Amino acid sequence: MANITKKVSWSSRGDEPAPAGEGTPLLNGAGGAARSYSRQVTAGDVDSTGSQPFFFIFFPLEIPHNEKLLSLKYESLDYDNSENQLFLEEERRMSYMGFRCLEISRWVVCALIGILTGLIACFIDIVVENLAGLKYKVIKENIEKFTEAGGLSISLILWAFLNSVIVMMGAIIVAFFEPIAAGSGIPQIKCYLNGVKIPRVVRLKTLVVKVCGVICSVAGGLAVGKEGPMIHSGAVVAAGVSQGRSTSLKKDFKIFEYFRRDTEKRDFVSAGAAAGVSAAFGAPVGGVLFSLEEGASFWNQMLTWRIFFASMISTFTLNFFLSIYHNKTGELSNPGLINFGRFDSDVSSPAFLHLQGMCGLLGALFNVLNYWLTIFRIRYIHRPCLQVMEAMLVAAVTATVSFAMIYFSDDCQPLGEDQAENYPLQLFCADGEYNSMATAFFNTPERSVRSLFHNPPGSYNPPTLGVFTLTYFFLACWTYGLTVSAGVFIPSLLIGAAWGRLFGIMLAHITPYGSIWADPGKYALIGAAAQLGGIVRMTLSLTVILVEATGNVTYGFPIMLVLMTAKIVGDYFVEGLYDIHIKLQSVPFLHWEAPATSHALTAREVMSSPVTCFNRVEKVGTIVDVLSNTSTNHNGFPVVTRVMDDDEPGKICGLILRSQLIVLLKHKVFVERTRSRLNQRKLQLKDFRDAYPRFPPIQSIHVSQDERECMMDLTEFMNPTPYTVTQETSLPRVFKLFRALGLRHLVVVDSENRVVGLVTRKDLARYHLGKHGLEELQLAQT
Amino acid sequence: MANITKKVSWSSRGDEPAPAGEGTPLLNGAGGAARSYSRQVTAGDVDSTGSQPFFFIFFPLEIPHNEKLLSLKYESLDYDNSENQLFLEEERRMSYMGFRCLEISRWVVCALIGILTGLIACFIDIVVENLAGLKYKVIKENIEKFTEAGGLSISLILWAFLNSVIVMMGAIIVAFFEPIAAGSGIPQIKCYLNGVKIPRVVRLKTLVVKVCGVICSVAGGLAVGKEGPMIHSGAVVAAGVSQGRSTSLKKDFKIFEYFRRDTEKRDFVSAGAAAGVSAAFGAPVGGVLFSLEEGASFWNQMLTWRIFFASMISTFTLNFFLSIYHNKTGELSNPGLINFGRFDSDVSSPAFLHLQGMCGLLGALFNVLNYWLTIFRIRYIHRPCLQVMEAMLVAAVTATVSFAMIYFSDDCQPLGEDQAENYPLQLFCADGEYNSMATAFFNTPERSVRSLFHNPPGSYNPPTLGVFTLTYFFLACWTYGLTVSAGVFIPSLLIGAAWGRLFGIMLAHITPYGSIWADPGKYALIGAAAQLGGIVRMTLSLTVILVEATGNVTYGFPIMLVLMTAKIVGDYFVEGLYDIHIKLQSVPFLHWEAPATSHALTAREVMSSPVTCFNRVEKVGTIVDVLSNTSTNHNGFPVVTRVMDDDEPGKICGLILRSQLIVLLKHKVFVERTRSRLNQRKLQLKDFRDAYPRFPPIQSIHVSQDERECMMDLTEFMNPTPYTVTQETSLPRVFKLFRALGLRHLVVVDSENRVVGLVTRKDLARYHLGKHGLEELQLAQT
Repeated sequence: MANITKKVSWSSRGDEPAPAGEGTPLLNGAGGAARSYSRQVTAGDVDSTGSQPFFFIFFPLEIPHNEKLLSLKYESLDYDNSENQLFLEEERRMSYMGFRCLEISRWVVCALIGILTGLIACFIDIVVENLAGLKYKVIKENIEKFTEAGGLSISLILWAFLNSVIVMMGAIIVAFFEPIAAGSGIPQIKCYLNGVKIPRVVRLKTLVVKVCGVICSVAGGLAVGKEGPMIHSGAVVAAGVSQGRSTSLKKDFKIFEYFRRDTEKRDFVSAGAAAGVSAAFGAPVGGVLFSLEEGASFWNQMLTWRIFFASMISTFTLNFFLSIYHNKTGELSNPGLINFGRFDSDVSSPAFLHLQGMCGLLGALFNVLNYWLTIFRIRYIHRPCLQVMEAMLVAAVTATVSFAMIYFSDDCQPLGEDQAENYPLQLFCADGEYNSMATAFFNTPERSVRSLFHNPPGSYNPPTLGVFTLTYFFLACWTYGLTVSAGVFIPSLLIGAAWGRLFGIMLAHITPYGSIWADPGKYALIGAAAQLGGIVRMTLSLTVILVEATGNVTYGFPIMLVLMTAKIVGDYFVEGLYDIHIKLQSVPFLHWEAPATSHALTAREVMSSPVTCFNRVEKVGTIVDVLSNTSTNHNGFPVVTRVMDDDEPGKICGLILRSQLIVLLKHKVFVERTRSRLNQRKLQLKDFRDAYPRFPPIQSIHVSQDERECMMDLTEFMNPTPYTVTQETSLPRVFKLFRALGLRHLVVVDSENRVVGLVTRKDLARYHLGKHGLEELQLAQT
Repeated sequence: MANITKKVSWSSRGDEPAPAGEGTPLLNGAGGAARSYSRQVTAGDVDSTGSQPFFFIFFPLEIPHNEKLLSLKYESLDYDNSENQLFLEEERRMSYMGFRCLEISRWVVCALIGILTGLIACFIDIVVENLAGLKYKVIKENIEKFTEAGGLSISLILWAFLNSVIVMMGAIIVAFFEPIAAGSGIPQIKCYLNGVKIPRVVRLKTLVVKVCGVICSVAGGLAVGKEGPMIHSGAVVAAGVSQGRSTSLKKDFKIFEYFRRDTEKRDFVSAGAAAGVSAAFGAPVGGVLFSLEEGASFWNQMLTWRIFFASMISTFTLNFFLSIYHNKTGELSNPGLINFGRFDSDVSSPAFLHLQGMCGLLGALFNVLNYWLTIFRIRYIHRPCLQVMEAMLVAAVTATVSFAMIYFSDDCQPLGEDQAENYPLQLFCADGEYNSMATAFFNTPERSVRSLFHNPPGSYNPPTLGVFTLTYFFLACWTYGLTVSAGVFIPSLLIGAAWGRLFGIMLAHITPYGSIWADPGKYALIGAAAQLGGIVRMTLSLTVILVEATGNVTYGFPIMLVLMTAKIVGDYFVEGLYDIHIKLQSVPFLHWEAPATSHALTAREVMSSPVTCFNRVEKVGTIVDVLSNTSTNHNGFPVVTRVMDDDEPGKICGLILRSQLIVLLKHKVFVERTRSRLNQRKLQLKDFRDAYPRFPPIQSIHVSQDERECMMDLTEFMNPTPYTVTQETSLPRVFKLFRALGLRHLVVVDSENRVVGLVTRKDLARYHLGKHGLEELQLAQT
């Protein structure tokens, strides 16, 4: 089992360059307070190391249910402050002015996040535009040369070659240097905001690879967008800026030290994700809602306002620099990387309701196909070189299919003055005309979307649109999940816009009202919303993002109806794309509420037990042994009053984290048996903050035999007031407490306040509503 | 002290028709788990019963700090389910399909809320338009008759008389029938969503009075808007619809019985408030954000989506019926009661930043003046008849001032074809011209705002605007807080729009860039945002509401900057208007976070102690005695294991509410000493739901002397798993738990799980950051 989920591109693979260490459980990555589970063997436990045929397309009749697993590999973030004595002393020392300064620096950080995210978006946009422009120019000249002379196959080869090379570069950096940078990054950010620590997801290296990767994939002509990766980029920027240092570059600016803990960092990452959405779609409010919908369980007015500030700054920065680049300084009316163009006319008839039957169905189909494909990839395409080759193959196929489409299309349209096509291909059309299929294929996807929305009625004929929808659907589906940085928003919009427009044209032909609903561009917009909604299943935030991107508030109502239908229809068949990928990674993701029918369960059934506890004053040797025990790998330990009888559990008096113990061991804060201090140096909160977030593994800390006999006094460092529940508490109640406060460990006590169990994220994420009622996922050391 | 806060229009006054029972503490209204505080005497404790001169305008030099009090009168809502055995049994019996049906009925309820709120908004709009139209027509004819003939004073008297009569009707129903319907209702809804039970705030009678009241005040020409009251109306609709019955009408539809508890009801009230905002401003997203910003501490995706649904339905319904009324069926592009008109041009220069210095200052001034006025009103104008007379006086003064302004104005403008004025007054202007001052004064405020935004440059001359701003500022300030139903949004927008436009015109005159910033309408918009932001201090939601009302997303950035500056500048001087009124009511309002410097406090200092506890099986007589004790008036009681020694506190094993005990006593669920059941009938959850929310007072329940000797077994009905904290828990930690979960009682235990204290809303709301650091409010039986 360990072999299966380990090799998806964005899973943590430790630092081994190739999957050589397969089958050995990862020592340093195992989850919080894991019990010593025997490794679960499931139906999906196939031999994947070996000699599968290279490209044997295999649709499994029975899909292995390896989404029925929960990985123990992922740790949890701690949204709850450890209010130990050090922390309380610091807080009590701080004056009101001190808190004001902190508040101001939070605003400064948010402004920086906005500015940097906007700059990154600007950079990506300009580079992609130039690279793609160059590529299309070369190919266009080549095609024009060979159209008359014959030998267009040379053009095809040139196109496929250029695409493959560019995509190869993107795939290589992702596959070999930072696999976590693959895909859109949205599932990862969702998990992070949910409170799951995805290794290396917010590192500088990831950002660099992501940015370069997305440039290559978009310029390489894949059916991808550059919008999703912006969200990830924003989150990385936020995590970096807010810490005032870069661990990768070994540079510490000695600022924002107060923010070096999960609580604060996660707030800033929310702001970063929002800034990313805002830059991508020019949708600052949508960005805030995205962050809140995906992340924050606790809504705080000031936090939200700061997030909004970061979003606004981000859009503004992007617009400002793009306007300078385009020599229109000061024109800030084109917000976002993707701009739907202004929809000025009103939606004055409920004609769109016709569309809703289809909503979600296509999205669900997309998700199902992509699900199978991902399973296939997890099994057979896990070596980086294979991944690179697959990406190149897709690039070449995309070019070929596009070329074939354009070649066999006979849809010629007159070349107008005001049209948006940058590279109109004449091909076999008459002079003064251009190939309409080329508008869709021989263009960056963003431009194609805009053309579908705004080109006047009659710009496309129905067969063109139909064929385009079909091919692009499969291309996009194949592309998502490749080991390249790429988003799924734009391809989804493009597919939806194409069939929406098609639908609009059909309707105008069939019905007597044709003339009323003459503008197929509106159908394209609604179709795009339906398709995107059917794939990603976001709700409020997506409505707002799309409304902001169209710049017309009156579209809100039809878009909401369409998204709602898409979600209902889609959810009937399969989950949203991001959720599918999260499940396939076996991430312990906590949803909004406990499963509806889980009132029958209580903390007693849910909790892990027995619990490894420490005494208030504990022997160093015991601590080192417990921390070194790889089979349990606990991350949080209840501290109990000294236990006389070993069978009797102790009364709870605190909770201490592995990371804190590691810092204590590292600084050798020991007390000799005789109670005189070995080490006079008093630990400060600063020591913990300096070590955050990459605490060294226990193996790197050397403790001598003498020191093992010393004692450690945990009183000062433990959290003396952990949240507790009794054994009879129902699962929904435990869940609510856990989720609302963003906990990592919740101690279960009996009526005497004795520790009887510990509830962690995995214990709650295990339960989910399946088709046959409440199901329990199995935990696995993957 | 009891006399002071008791008589503000929206405080509960029990049911006594006139304040005859002054000075006697209210028996049935006292707060949750109140301790027996001695009644606090403060600086504000003046004799207010007596013979004050009738209209002796008195500005106190030293303002009595009666906002430094916390009323014990307000109970708390229980957002935490009491998970007793009955509840758990019901939940466990329910199948997955049952939960699905519940979910569907939640959506149905939200749709109903949206439709009804939209219809109410529509009704108000149409009635106001017709009434005001009739009034202005009569006056206009009269003025025209007398302009030539002389004797315009007759017109003035007519105007003042009409206004006074209409306003009198509105004031009478509010003052005599339902004082809680006074004002905009937003502070009350804020408190409700925060978890404070404001008596009678969501009753049908309140809704009827509110709707009639707002029609009268707007038609009566006061400086008020009809938008704020829509939010209150939406909330009442939601509370009514979701319960499936009306207690006032004694009609139970036997539906939605599951929703008869605080948790569910509060969610629906959020949706109702959002629907109200949405109907008022055509801002569905703004409505959702308003609800979340003011209310929800726990963000839930499905809930938010439902709230959004209700908002959308509400706007849609309003638009649909208004379009039918205006004979333009199907034109849904004018959302909201107030419609700013379409701002099509872009904001392309950061010119608005000039304005920001002034932002907030005027708002703060407004708030300070209104604060003084409110104090004055609380002291001297507390009898309903005085309140009605004040309202009539204001109406007459408003008419007089308006008339004088129009009369002395010499700003004549040519009568164009395309202008928005419905009742252009020629007065002393030449033929074909109209009096420009009359546009502002002789019009409903909504139309005046739109004129200021959209009339072409030159429609107003600067002196007109200056004088208008000044007078309207004082009129609006005087009007807010009258005993009439009225909102402050529109007057604020109007003041801001006037000085914004003035500023724009000045700037165009002074600076060389005049021609670039030629459109003063934009300045009017930004000024309106600044003024409104300075008064109400809302942040994200107000930005979105204004953006949605303008229909142009590009205004988001300047509006955000302006609102932010207005908030920062304003907060430096005084709080927001709603917060001032909440404080003056001594409502125990919980803010987002505990005061910054409160880490030094722990649960031990904060909690109330000793706590009245019950045993698991308790004597009926004891329970009746405790419940009847008017000096304590506890609402929640920890249930403890039987205590042998009376000095030793018992171990916690549950928590039971006064309301539950009342139901148990009413149904006589007693056990005889011999343990055979007196009453075989088993209580159902239904019995508790039927009694919700108006549980009878203990005095109405007769318990015979024999019954007093019986026992009551609380095991089945108590919440066996209340949240607990230890005594050492810091205040911010307690606060976070309390706020995040919406608790009403939090039990403080020692290390042995023995009850040592109880934390309620008042214990937390007591602490606030004053000018000299952390301050503690005093609790009072007002």
